[in-house]
Amino acid sequence: MTPDSKGTSSAGSQTARRRIEAATLVTGNPNKVLEAERICGFSIQHAQIDLPEIQSALLAEVANEKAREAWRQIKSPVIVDETGLELASMNGFPGPLVKWMLDAIGPDGIARTVSALGDPRAAAVCMLAYYDGSAHCTGEGRTEGVLVRPPRGDNGFGWDPVFQAIGEIETYAQLAQGRKDEIGHRGRAWRALLSRMA
Amino acid sequence: MTPDSKGTSSAGSQTARRRIEAATLVTGNPNKVLEAERICGFSIQHAQIDLPEIQSALLAEVANEKAREAWRQIKSPVIVDETGLELASMNGFPGPLVKWMLDAIGPDGIARTVSALGDPRAAAVCMLAYYDGSAHCTGEGRTEGVLVRPPRGDNGFGWDPVFQAIGEIETYAQLAQGRKDEIGHRGRAWRALLSRMA
Repeated sequence: MTPDSKGTSSAGSQTARRRIEAATLVTGNPNKVLEAERICGFSIQHAQIDLPEIQSALLAEVANEKAREAWRQIKSPVIVDETGLELASMNGFPGPLVKWMLDAIGPDGIARTVSALGDPRAAAVCMLAYYDGSAHCTGEGRTEGVLVRPPRGDNGFGWDPVFQAIGEIETYAQLAQGRKDEIGHRGRAWRALLSRMA
Repeated sequence: MTPDSKGTSSAGSQTARRRIEAATLVTGNPNKVLEAERICGFSIQHAQIDLPEIQSALLAEVANEKAREAWRQIKSPVIVDETGLELASMNGFPGPLVKWMLDAIGPDGIARTVSALGDPRAAAVCMLAYYDGSAHCTGEGRTEGVLVRPPRGDNGFGWDPVFQAIGEIETYAQLAQGRKDEIGHRGRAWRALLSRMA
């Protein structure tokens, strides 16, 4: 990882850092805040609000609509973190709807499903959407992998124990945090956002 | 079916019919309008609008929120028709989110998934929500069945070709319309709504 990817070295990155520090990360999931601060290397204001989300198979649509809703509630610059899991065996379903599948059958249930369907490939996608009442900015991160059984590891959250990125031998929940941030969908999304906001 | 269940015989049913005739069925799916008119036995005003829907595993929550959104757009009494498919092998997932699963993998893909998971049981659920700006009224219909492969029949729409209700030997898409309306989730929901609005 270059120093730049932490958003702390160049003038451009300093601008991005200042803009992100002036925003509020609105999410009902405190784990997303922890990861964001670890990835960015600085503190991020956050508000724990479970925002209503529209139904869509398009992550960007869900994220942008959620950012507008967050802005209506907070009335100052906001960032939302929308995450999806695209299962190859289901042509990309459930995507942004994965949290409902996770609620229903858990990480092992999702892994069992793709295993039963004979294709374990999955893509983890994170879409960060910034909105300040007029300007939108998004950062997307995508990591290809497979779902494995049984679940392994105690780090992370959600489907981390069954997601193994291509080229890794450990699941997200087993990887050292630095490694997860480097190759993971959320790390990539934050670095993309930092670079676009510079 | 009793004459009452068509909403055309008693004073109470006449009241329900008048109230439903004064409302607009708001749906992006013209098949839902056709079935509603066949079930009720009278014409129903409709507006073909694809409303944004919130993400939820609770059909009633999605339907009531959608009815309020429809009312904001139409400004006169509205009815919305929210349908879900609860897969036993996935603890009820995807429920109201089934249309996204259907878009992704089609009816046979859904049937293949539950077959691979070893439990073909599914429940078809329809929730009708009426809202006139102040009063809410809902009618729910539920039909238990199994998903079968390959898809059979040319009637109906959506996942009708793979849904076979308990006690039937034909899929929804093979059943005579009268029989589908009698035992189906949408017929039951409309009769529940008619009876509650009487």
